[in-house]
Amino acid sequence: MKRTAFDFPLALARGSGDPLRVQVVHGLRVAVQTGRLPAGSALPSTRALAADLGISRGLVVEAYEQLRAEGYLIAQRGSATRVARRRLPDAPARRTRETPVVMQPPALAAWRPRFDFRPGVPDVSLFPARSWMRALRRVWADGAPAVLDYPDPQGVEPARTALASYLSRSRATVAEASRVVLCTGFAQAARLVAEVLRARGVRRMIVEDPGHADQCADIRAAGLELVPVPVDDGGLVVDRLATIDAGAALVTPAHQHPTGAVLDPERRAALLAWAETRRAFVLEDDYDAEYRYDRAPVGALQGLAPERVVYIGSASKMLAPSLRQGWLVVPAELVAGVRQAKLSADRGSPALEQLALAAFLEAGELDRHLRRTRGIYRRRRDALVGALGRYLPGTTVHGVAAGLHALVALPRSTDEPGVVAAAARNGVRVYGAREYHAVPAAAPPALLLGYGGVSEKDIEPGVKQLAKIIGGARR
Amino acid sequence: MKRTAFDFPLALARGSGDPLRVQVVHGLRVAVQTGRLPAGSALPSTRALAADLGISRGLVVEAYEQLRAEGYLIAQRGSATRVARRRLPDAPARRTRETPVVMQPPALAAWRPRFDFRPGVPDVSLFPARSWMRALRRVWADGAPAVLDYPDPQGVEPARTALASYLSRSRATVAEASRVVLCTGFAQAARLVAEVLRARGVRRMIVEDPGHADQCADIRAAGLELVPVPVDDGGLVVDRLATIDAGAALVTPAHQHPTGAVLDPERRAALLAWAETRRAFVLEDDYDAEYRYDRAPVGALQGLAPERVVYIGSASKMLAPSLRQGWLVVPAELVAGVRQAKLSADRGSPALEQLALAAFLEAGELDRHLRRTRGIYRRRRDALVGALGRYLPGTTVHGVAAGLHALVALPRSTDEPGVVAAAARNGVRVYGAREYHAVPAAAPPALLLGYGGVSEKDIEPGVKQLAKIIGGARR
Repeated sequence: MKRTAFDFPLALARGSGDPLRVQVVHGLRVAVQTGRLPAGSALPSTRALAADLGISRGLVVEAYEQLRAEGYLIAQRGSATRVARRRLPDAPARRTRETPVVMQPPALAAWRPRFDFRPGVPDVSLFPARSWMRALRRVWADGAPAVLDYPDPQGVEPARTALASYLSRSRATVAEASRVVLCTGFAQAARLVAEVLRARGVRRMIVEDPGHADQCADIRAAGLELVPVPVDDGGLVVDRLATIDAGAALVTPAHQHPTGAVLDPERRAALLAWAETRRAFVLEDDYDAEYRYDRAPVGALQGLAPERVVYIGSASKMLAPSLRQGWLVVPAELVAGVRQAKLSADRGSPALEQLALAAFLEAGELDRHLRRTRGIYRRRRDALVGALGRYLPGTTVHGVAAGLHALVALPRSTDEPGVVAAAARNGVRVYGAREYHAVPAAAPPALLLGYGGVSEKDIEPGVKQLAKIIGGARR
Repeated sequence: MKRTAFDFPLALARGSGDPLRVQVVHGLRVAVQTGRLPAGSALPSTRALAADLGISRGLVVEAYEQLRAEGYLIAQRGSATRVARRRLPDAPARRTRETPVVMQPPALAAWRPRFDFRPGVPDVSLFPARSWMRALRRVWADGAPAVLDYPDPQGVEPARTALASYLSRSRATVAEASRVVLCTGFAQAARLVAEVLRARGVRRMIVEDPGHADQCADIRAAGLELVPVPVDDGGLVVDRLATIDAGAALVTPAHQHPTGAVLDPERRAALLAWAETRRAFVLEDDYDAEYRYDRAPVGALQGLAPERVVYIGSASKMLAPSLRQGWLVVPAELVAGVRQAKLSADRGSPALEQLALAAFLEAGELDRHLRRTRGIYRRRRDALVGALGRYLPGTTVHGVAAGLHALVALPRSTDEPGVVAAAARNGVRVYGAREYHAVPAAAPPALLLGYGGVSEKDIEPGVKQLAKIIGGARR
């Protein structure tokens, strides 16, 4: 390392692999950026600096010229090269700049509780890593993949075809590749549809109460007003819709979130009749429909009315949220709009992972994975329901035997936020249900207990611990 | 295959692998969906259908119950099970439903010209497939990857760190991982920033004229008004900004799109002074800055004023558009907003490919790839400039020796759209420059000739062919 005789440190590391010119440019640039070379200050002549550093003068001339082109230095004929005057906020120095941004990592990730009943995530340790990697390799089998240019914004054709076939077979949709749109998970799908509907003049969307609080925020961000409609044991109370002026309804027919109800057959028909009469659209969130333990999953609403229902699914619950793969099956009159919205949002989702998904589906890997994990989650659910019966006999498990969580009603007098907080202090993560209600203060006390993040053997001790906490909170 | 005695075909295929119950449900469902079982029609009794199909009655009971739950059938005590009455638009049959949606594949992909001078795309056949796959494998080296749950919406930490280091080293940014946001390419980055600025009260954004026409549409979609400001050989004519009331400016300082100009050092300083005075933000689109052939690339504007410049880059020109990876380096006061906008848009980009990018960068693979491709594109550019000199001496090549395209000014009298159309008819794809101008009709005739999609040896015959067409058009 060599330092110059001047009052700014310019360290050159010969043999570091970086060309000397690059090192000189970088050293000077950082000196300006950090304020060690203040605005207006004169630099040594190229000859003097070259001699000082023991390098060729041409190299310093090049470096000065580079930094002049970038706006760091000013060269005037017959005068010294100077640091350009710029008004920077507080002439930020590297050290101080590292502190002001307080970026909280996601709260969820930060804390590792002993018993984690977080809902809404699958057990990612069950992710079929080998078969997914095999699917990825298949994409690359012939050297470079088929799709490297800008992809079809609607999704690459093999993936749309594979999904259409999978959904029609497994979820009873009426899906054709031309109606399928691939996107970045459910959240983007809902957002895009909300934007399209807004542009068509829709102003209000019916949502389930209780429902998906975070989805609601996104739909509001797209400019729609939300109209909460209550849910009971038969799902959305559809007869409330008659008097509501809304152009869309977002529902979870296969497994209501968070109550776990299945939408009644009669209500299915009534909901579709409502949509038909109003020329409204139903957004069907089919988020964990593949996980039904007591019978075959109920087929999608979309199959009954493909021109009025927008079907939305994703890989987040079936495989892993980090894949960020979602899909829509869209009525004919919305296809062009959703495609355009996706183009404008991000020009289409990554193509290679779409091809991997297609290969994965076509090899039957998703079926295999679901068969395997269905058994695992079913045992966890049984363990949860059993433990709740033993240790918390005053609670009621809502909904059907399905999905990745259970809604557990607590005795009326229970202080739900108090229980959630006390549980957290004692190493148990549970979510209160009130945040899923349109009017949280009016919600009956209940917990959402997810079993994606807790192993079968941890469920009993976890519930036992939770029972102690609830008992303590009630005393 | 067995067909029933009733007047609807229900085909069972024993030994097909699908359980008989699934086949019965599927067959009935499709019969309803396609109208072969019309609404209101009575189904055979479970006993009769079971006998007819030679299967157990319990199986038919289950199937009817399944379809009742899904809303396809209605069961009333003491009466036959019937197909539910639903008002479907035109009782769509599968056959007819396949035709109405006319989805055009992207026009670009549909046509394969003999000589393809499409700008804005790299040569995807140069994609470093092996080293990218190696990076992907590294992500999966320990079985399941580290990030399978919902990712940090701002981008996973290893990728933000690797990018911050790469950009600071190679593009002279002042980037820290906490300021980096990963997203789905440039388009989403610009869209998110536009949304955040709009929410902060910004109403107008300055754009370069000529500039990126498609980006402009997206920014308008986010609710901002665009103010076009002319570009000359020194880039954006910054002294025009003094009288414009705008809260942001979108610029391409390293290589103006489409003219190829580099933003003057004095204008860099003036632009940043403007931004500082107005508390405005500069969006720096660094789209193909890595491809400079006559000298080292000019460092990013962001390094001069990290609190006023939003730096945006992507993998689309350096690697492949289908990766859909883009990144921002964001001023401190915008980080929380951009992070929130990304969360609301799609909950974050796919995590595994972010990790692959990190591994790719850290192994030095991007540097290697750029070194290799820089030579290839440089030779193509030289071939293009040489051929233009020989066959089209009346034209002028604008801009510096950089990027993946050249803007070629045609003689004043040339009918630009006529040339583009005639070239297309003769197997040569070229783009006219007028669509990049705020007032297309006033634009001087010029062509954008990209060399990402044409090999070195095809450039001379391609230009020769183009010269014939231009000669013909002028006669």
